[in-house]
Amino acid sequence: MTRVGVIGATGYAGAELVRLLCGHPGIELTILTSRQYAGVAYDAIYPAMKNVTRLVCEEMLVDRICDKADVVFTALPHKLPMTIVPDLLHRGKRVIDLSADFRFKDAVVYESFYDSHKAKDLLERSVYGLCEIYFERIRNADLIGVPGCYPTSVLLPLIPVLKSKFIDEDTLVADSKSGVSGAGRSLSLATHFCEANESFKPYKIATHRHNPEMEMVLTRETGAPVTLTFVPHLVPMNRGILTTIYAGLRQKVTVDNVVDCFLSFYSECPFIRLFNENKSPDTLYVRGTNYCDLGFKIDERNNRLILISAIDNLVKGAAGQAVQNMNIMLGLDETTGLLGVPFPV
Amino acid sequence: MTRVGVIGATGYAGAELVRLLCGHPGIELTILTSRQYAGVAYDAIYPAMKNVTRLVCEEMLVDRICDKADVVFTALPHKLPMTIVPDLLHRGKRVIDLSADFRFKDAVVYESFYDSHKAKDLLERSVYGLCEIYFERIRNADLIGVPGCYPTSVLLPLIPVLKSKFIDEDTLVADSKSGVSGAGRSLSLATHFCEANESFKPYKIATHRHNPEMEMVLTRETGAPVTLTFVPHLVPMNRGILTTIYAGLRQKVTVDNVVDCFLSFYSECPFIRLFNENKSPDTLYVRGTNYCDLGFKIDERNNRLILISAIDNLVKGAAGQAVQNMNIMLGLDETTGLLGVPFPV
Amino acid sequence: MTRVGVIGATGYAGAELVRLLCGHPGIELTILTSRQYAGVAYDAIYPAMKNVTRLVCEEMLVDRICDKADVVFTALPHKLPMTIVPDLLHRGKRVIDLSADFRFKDAVVYESFYDSHKAKDLLERSVYGLCEIYFERIRNADLIGVPGCYPTSVLLPLIPVLKSKFIDEDTLVADSKSGVSGAGRSLSLATHFCEANESFKPYKIATHRHNPEMEMVLTRETGAPVTLTFVPHLVPMNRGILTTIYAGLRQKVTVDNVVDCFLSFYSECPFIRLFNENKSPDTLYVRGTNYCDLGFKIDERNNRLILISAIDNLVKGAAGQAVQNMNIMLGLDETTGLLGVPFPV
Amino acid sequence: MTRVGVIGATGYAGAELVRLLCGHPGIELTILTSRQYAGVAYDAIYPAMKNVTRLVCEEMLVDRICDKADVVFTALPHKLPMTIVPDLLHRGKRVIDLSADFRFKDAVVYESFYDSHKAKDLLERSVYGLCEIYFERIRNADLIGVPGCYPTSVLLPLIPVLKSKFIDEDTLVADSKSGVSGAGRSLSLATHFCEANESFKPYKIATHRHNPEMEMVLTRETGAPVTLTFVPHLVPMNRGILTTIYAGLRQKVTVDNVVDCFLSFYSECPFIRLFNENKSPDTLYVRGTNYCDLGFKIDERNNRLILISAIDNLVKGAAGQAVQNMNIMLGLDETTGLLGVPFPV
Repeated sequence: MTRVGVIGATGYAGAELVRLLCGHPGIELTILTSRQYAGVAYDAIYPAMKNVTRLVCEEMLVDRICDKADVVFTALPHKLPMTIVPDLLHRGKRVIDLSADFRFKDAVVYESFYDSHKAKDLLERSVYGLCEIYFERIRNADLIGVPGCYPTSVLLPLIPVLKSKFIDEDTLVADSKSGVSGAGRSLSLATHFCEANESFKPYKIATHRHNPEMEMVLTRETGAPVTLTFVPHLVPMNRGILTTIYAGLRQKVTVDNVVDCFLSFYSECPFIRLFNENKSPDTLYVRGTNYCDLGFKIDERNNRLILISAIDNLVKGAAGQAVQNMNIMLGLDETTGLLGVPFPV
Repeated sequence: MTRVGVIGATGYAGAELVRLLCGHPGIELTILTSRQYAGVAYDAIYPAMKNVTRLVCEEMLVDRICDKADVVFTALPHKLPMTIVPDLLHRGKRVIDLSADFRFKDAVVYESFYDSHKAKDLLERSVYGLCEIYFERIRNADLIGVPGCYPTSVLLPLIPVLKSKFIDEDTLVADSKSGVSGAGRSLSLATHFCEANESFKPYKIATHRHNPEMEMVLTRETGAPVTLTFVPHLVPMNRGILTTIYAGLRQKVTVDNVVDCFLSFYSECPFIRLFNENKSPDTLYVRGTNYCDLGFKIDERNNRLILISAIDNLVKGAAGQAVQNMNIMLGLDETTGLLGVPFPV
Repeated sequence: MTRVGVIGATGYAGAELVRLLCGHPGIELTILTSRQYAGVAYDAIYPAMKNVTRLVCEEMLVDRICDKADVVFTALPHKLPMTIVPDLLHRGKRVIDLSADFRFKDAVVYESFYDSHKAKDLLERSVYGLCEIYFERIRNADLIGVPGCYPTSVLLPLIPVLKSKFIDEDTLVADSKSGVSGAGRSLSLATHFCEANESFKPYKIATHRHNPEMEMVLTRETGAPVTLTFVPHLVPMNRGILTTIYAGLRQKVTVDNVVDCFLSFYSECPFIRLFNENKSPDTLYVRGTNYCDLGFKIDERNNRLILISAIDNLVKGAAGQAVQNMNIMLGLDETTGLLGVPFPV
Repeated sequence: MTRVGVIGATGYAGAELVRLLCGHPGIELTILTSRQYAGVAYDAIYPAMKNVTRLVCEEMLVDRICDKADVVFTALPHKLPMTIVPDLLHRGKRVIDLSADFRFKDAVVYESFYDSHKAKDLLERSVYGLCEIYFERIRNADLIGVPGCYPTSVLLPLIPVLKSKFIDEDTLVADSKSGVSGAGRSLSLATHFCEANESFKPYKIATHRHNPEMEMVLTRETGAPVTLTFVPHLVPMNRGILTTIYAGLRQKVTVDNVVDCFLSFYSECPFIRLFNENKSPDTLYVRGTNYCDLGFKIDERNNRLILISAIDNLVKGAAGQAVQNMNIMLGLDETTGLLGVPFPV
């Protein structure tokens, strides 16, 4: 059975990986590391995990990790993965990185939004892990850059209609709303309960680091430069991203056109659920799941197509998509361990 | 002292009117009516009001209302005000209506989104109560149609920049997010705690009844037909609307241009607070207040102007703006009774 | 494979049953009924279930149910199960009822808190489905009365210490706090988002119908009459009950005494997790799980033992415990389908 | 007009003081200090205060404070006030301290739960600022120790019935539930949005520092040693404390007995609101107000009296009570500036 490790297991993305991997029937979770909690039992950090795992957090030591694991997830703040991933690959491990470090092909773009890159030679080798789009490349990859949560919620609804030439790529606006877990487990005034509760606000307006990531993929997929205006907002709830996309129509389209576009594009994709025109996706429906729910509305008066997507930012937006990548790399069914039934409320 | 009555005092807008009027130093609140709770003490319906008011809800009887009040607020579902407002006006009362019944000049528009109109002859006489824009007309009015909550949040940021010709009126998108009190006190599955909590979703996508109201005002103000795409969303919090508006720029503008535009346009307006480019409005900052906070960002890459507004939907979006109208009509300072200090959290 | 039906599948307890049964590897879910939604696809009522189940809600017809299912869960308001359960039993079905109808041995007690009983002859046959206490009886039962959510949270911490004679049964106080889903999916002002949010309050103080249920079991287990003061409160969250119990100590006890008492009593019980004296249970840790977390503190100054329990009211407090009963009745491992890994947040 | 300063104006209690003092018609707020934000405009820290105050936070310099203010509120972590209060008193200022530093008469008790005391000579001079009980002493005081939030919620319901000899003082249990703002604005994992949301838990079970404070006052008021078991819990909401008290009855009492006891004891107290036996207090009803709502239930079966109190922890539990103390000291009506009308939701 494939042995799996999680580097950075105590942040929310790492903890969600642990949740999914503990329930995954096709692998064995063998090692967890944490810079902050090395030596501490995992269930002392997350008491919900009492009786579920007996693993104890360890230091991030490459030898030890390589002894214990065949596949390694890195769930660290950007800049850290690039310091350890080369070693892991060198030892023949497959690596699935949840940070931004291996998402970009072009180090210049990365460096202008993040930091200087220390492992540029790996960027070409790395595969952008948006499973519904890059399934084939993922199958043969040994290094995955898992997409950001916002890009996942923007790219999945947008790519099919952009490729269908329905919409004018100069008109794109993506207005995203995320639950607070997207900001991570680090303490800040913005995520203090009393400041986030009963509050709704945008942040990093048109300057978020996920913006170039989206544009890189859209440009690659359409073959022409695509830019978009992206504004994220913070919602007083734990989990979920809902993105509303506004796009000018090039031509008159019907509901059937749009439905056909999505159904044919995603015909093989078990985690895409298309809602009909009269029912909108809701973050509540995807909580804890790897689904990306899609909805749409044709605004005939203004000649626009409105797209809606909903994901759980910690699952399809992070840990779930990471596990989906692992499944594909290992030749497992891509849904393995990812079909937990959603809560009604 | 002016005697004031509230028709429909037990819905959320009505209750917020009662809150503001009980604390208003320039008037006396003399009568409350409620179809559902006639005969019940107001503080039995809202126990928070124990020791604050001893008023008892009454039936909606025109004679009784006219005996008790000089100014009448109607906070009823649309279609009901038009059945009683003509009588009230006929008896010389001034009426401030919070429904949609007297917002439109053109009965056809009203009828296509609401119902058949029974008091069309009053539409010309009625003034649209957006105080920052129609102050002079309000002063001399005896019938006010208080703007909807969403239109208030869209019109206040948009009118100045549209009138400044900065933006292209064919590119307008307004993405609004509202707390649950906007849906009123009536029971529905959508407002059941367990279904609204930990949920974020759009509704009435590009088909909301506030859409024509916005377009009517924008068209009137700019002198040319304006349409916009409007999508409202439901946020798991009690109060607040935050609207994000996306508009294509006609020309290059600077931060100073936009700041000047707003500051000069709203120089006399005590409830408009302009945030600088690096700090966004937040519904938390306006909770319980009559402020409309404005923010903006120039998205140079995409040649768009992004506008942000935040209001409390029950105050500036309903009861507070209604009281502001009353103040103006009565010749009081427009801030009277509306300067309660906001909560820090 | 055992075929299973859920009668009353669209309330929250029913929906949680559907969630757990859809993920249960040892049975097949074959029929759902709903008085309100007969004829409607289940995923139209709970869109989260899209792609998860294709079942359509049906009328509650005994013949049809008996054709389709070997085990039947009844998740109906009390008074309704007693009208259908006799028929189901007569046809040889095993029935697990989530209402109060089959919890009491003494119809007089039931009738004084609920309604007149129409199936009194079944009360002796029915087994009270508190699995950790009545495992053996459940194994051989064909009719289970699943305990109420509050009683589960009170009985599991209290029975071991009462049987150990540590505490004085005349001193018992149970102060419980429940998430809003405990009030069900029916609409009411108390569960309207705006009224429940930012609110905390008790209800049915010392008069809740779960009070006699607790006392019946405690009396049976200790062999002498036990009464207790029980006060439930409503917490602004979806799921979870936390109960704090105060009990006078008969004698001096040590931390080890209490730990030993629980560990020995629950040594075979996979869903009981004992927290040490310095860490308290939290509803967050049990959300979505069938665990009952227990904690305690000895208040030496006041000679009291304080017990804490936390459960998910919809799982261990309803649907999860119901499935645990089914597992036991069917000879499956009692944890089958109930070990979904908890969310970190 | 009396000039007032707030030392420690940026924590939640300090910010709530600023809110109340900005709206107070009888004083002038002249100086704010903050260790963390000295030099920063107050409305940059709390943007809600834009246009409300132009004050800028200053360093905590005694000379400057004494120049600017006649009355000084100290809203600092315990241990800090005792370093500055002696100087302020020496200069003839009246001081209202919101920490624990001046609540105790006996330094030994303080030191066993907090720290070594540096200003023991002031303890006798200081008055415990529970206004409904110590009104006369407060009138003549120049140093007030404002009660803790939990003690306020426990003492106000308990003192009248204890003094009436209804209840047995050996049986007292107080189960309190507080909103998250009670934990202050300092960052911690316990107050991180994702960890506090959808969570309910007790903390510092029977070991909270407010326990001896309650017992000190109860003992003083009854003339005999009183102890009680006190357990605080954290509720996922911003504001409010609801306390449920369980007390054994010495004798049979009627509803009228209890009502009479409260009404006569609090006949002169404008902030006490007594609810009848069939309606419970709710934190929602007191949000933002200085009210302490009281309710009760006689549990005849178990011969206990159950008392309920609800306050806003930041108002009657901190800043509001502090202002009420100031009003009394200054000979103003005690309600001045404290009668803001509560929100309906």
